[in-house]
Amino acid sequence: MKSEFQFIQYIQNRFSLSRVGDDCAVLPKNHDTDLLISADMLVQDVDFRLEWSRPADIGYKSLAVSLSDIAAMGGNPIWGMLSLAVPDFQWNEEFLDEFYEGWHFLAKKHGVELIGGDTSSTTGKFVIDSIVMGEVPKGRAIRRSGAKPRDHIYVSGTLGGASGGLRSLETTQIGVASPLISDLVTKQLRPRPQVELGKQLNALGIVTSMIDISDGLSSDLAHICRSSGVGALIDAEQIPIDPNLIAAFTDPDETLDIALNGGEDFELLFTVSPEDIDQLRSLDVVRIGTITEHADILEISQNGNPKELLPGGFRHF
Amino acid sequence: MKSEFQFIQYIQNRFSLSRVGDDCAVLPKNHDTDLLISADMLVQDVDFRLEWSRPADIGYKSLAVSLSDIAAMGGNPIWGMLSLAVPDFQWNEEFLDEFYEGWHFLAKKHGVELIGGDTSSTTGKFVIDSIVMGEVPKGRAIRRSGAKPRDHIYVSGTLGGASGGLRSLETTQIGVASPLISDLVTKQLRPRPQVELGKQLNALGIVTSMIDISDGLSSDLAHICRSSGVGALIDAEQIPIDPNLIAAFTDPDETLDIALNGGEDFELLFTVSPEDIDQLRSLDVVRIGTITEHADILEISQNGNPKELLPGGFRHF
Repeated sequence: MKSEFQFIQYIQNRFSLSRVGDDCAVLPKNHDTDLLISADMLVQDVDFRLEWSRPADIGYKSLAVSLSDIAAMGGNPIWGMLSLAVPDFQWNEEFLDEFYEGWHFLAKKHGVELIGGDTSSTTGKFVIDSIVMGEVPKGRAIRRSGAKPRDHIYVSGTLGGASGGLRSLETTQIGVASPLISDLVTKQLRPRPQVELGKQLNALGIVTSMIDISDGLSSDLAHICRSSGVGALIDAEQIPIDPNLIAAFTDPDETLDIALNGGEDFELLFTVSPEDIDQLRSLDVVRIGTITEHADILEISQNGNPKELLPGGFRHF
Repeated sequence: MKSEFQFIQYIQNRFSLSRVGDDCAVLPKNHDTDLLISADMLVQDVDFRLEWSRPADIGYKSLAVSLSDIAAMGGNPIWGMLSLAVPDFQWNEEFLDEFYEGWHFLAKKHGVELIGGDTSSTTGKFVIDSIVMGEVPKGRAIRRSGAKPRDHIYVSGTLGGASGGLRSLETTQIGVASPLISDLVTKQLRPRPQVELGKQLNALGIVTSMIDISDGLSSDLAHICRSSGVGALIDAEQIPIDPNLIAAFTDPDETLDIALNGGEDFELLFTVSPEDIDQLRSLDVVRIGTITEHADILEISQNGNPKELLPGGFRHF
């Protein structure tokens, strides 16, 4: 059977859906502005666990993942909606209050207003559909499809922290009150969407393609390559691995694997033509490689030896 | 514990959500146009049953309920999104193909384009979040809050059919291949959103308040009264009860109860000032009563005797 990604591609082709395939759909708004809209379905025991997360963490993260989609297009988030299917046994004021508080905590930071949604009870799992709308100057939404051979590849922040946090939660290390584990767990439960950086990059007008790292560096780079009809060569030594991850997981092969294939860091991954890279100087981003002409081929160079990199991607637990 | 409706009111007050409380949120789009957006969460075994519905019926109805929200504001639907949490055992091409076919069958009729959404697997129930966006001339979205004392109350079509169909599905009558039962079941599984009528009413510019009948006539009329700060008196003899319902359920008290309190007919319920009612002459709508000054009081007159009507509303099975 098809994976979720393959299935979306299949439906996209079958019904000729021209606006599907980026982090957000781009719709005409007015003379100066396009509207961005994104939906993310979060499912209990697939995307979060009630045992690990306080209701406020789940509310926070529901919004964070959608803000990250807006950031990936270089947009400014404005409105949000929440549709909830709430298990009967969670249908109580305290649980839902805390959930909405977590959502609003992050919404306030970004000036996002809750404008609607729906609420239903369910005898099944807790399911959240998080919808965020934003704006971008007309014709300026940054797509996945514009990367060109020779473009430099950049990422923001550090990678692997959120996935390291998930591993800590899944193992006995959850009990360990070490500050570095706690930092990794925070990256898993309370990720920071790179909205400001996305807007700065959009304003520069030099980014040829962009995506947020939700599935994992290797998978999300593969999405850019597929959409752009190009390949990529990245340098293992340049990948900004989360320092707490390195401290917690001492095997360097393991930390590299987590940084490459762990998901949910919600950092930005983007490409810029070599002529324009000077303009990135003041930003906290790191070059990790180069776009190549080898369509759909990802390569990674380690100790000077390039080898093919298969997208390992984020596998839900 | 609060009902879903009470909970939404509570969250709305707690976080001062000014755009929540109508069938759609109304957002500024451009100089001439406002954007409407609505989300509906449909949950397996609450809103539909896989035993009764083909996947195409579920896809069709997911869109129908959201189109009805756009119709209730007098809007023109344009874009749709679908977020799905699909049970592992339903994660197969045939099921999902048919679901999307049912959605597209209705979407084509109304010129609606699928622009995005999300798909996840789940170990729980099948959950669908249906989002539809549409347009309305600037400042012309028809709200629930404009009904005035003396306004006449109208409904479109006939009432009780969808609820009668649900009762038939719930009982042994499902096996009965009678044409009238089959018509009632069609009203439950394949309701017709009144998009064209909503647009016509908006163009007339005389409707003071409107809602679609999703929860049931009594509950939805109560929503209009609460939002408008008014009451309503309806005439039992004027309620257009579905003729197939009358034929199938011969007890007149039972059919009246179903027409008053059964949900999901997705007809339009609206109010018009007595000075303007002549303009409704060519439309297939029926006057059922009058708006009164008695805030939040619903009354029903039967054989000339008015008595208070408590909103019985749609109770999910």
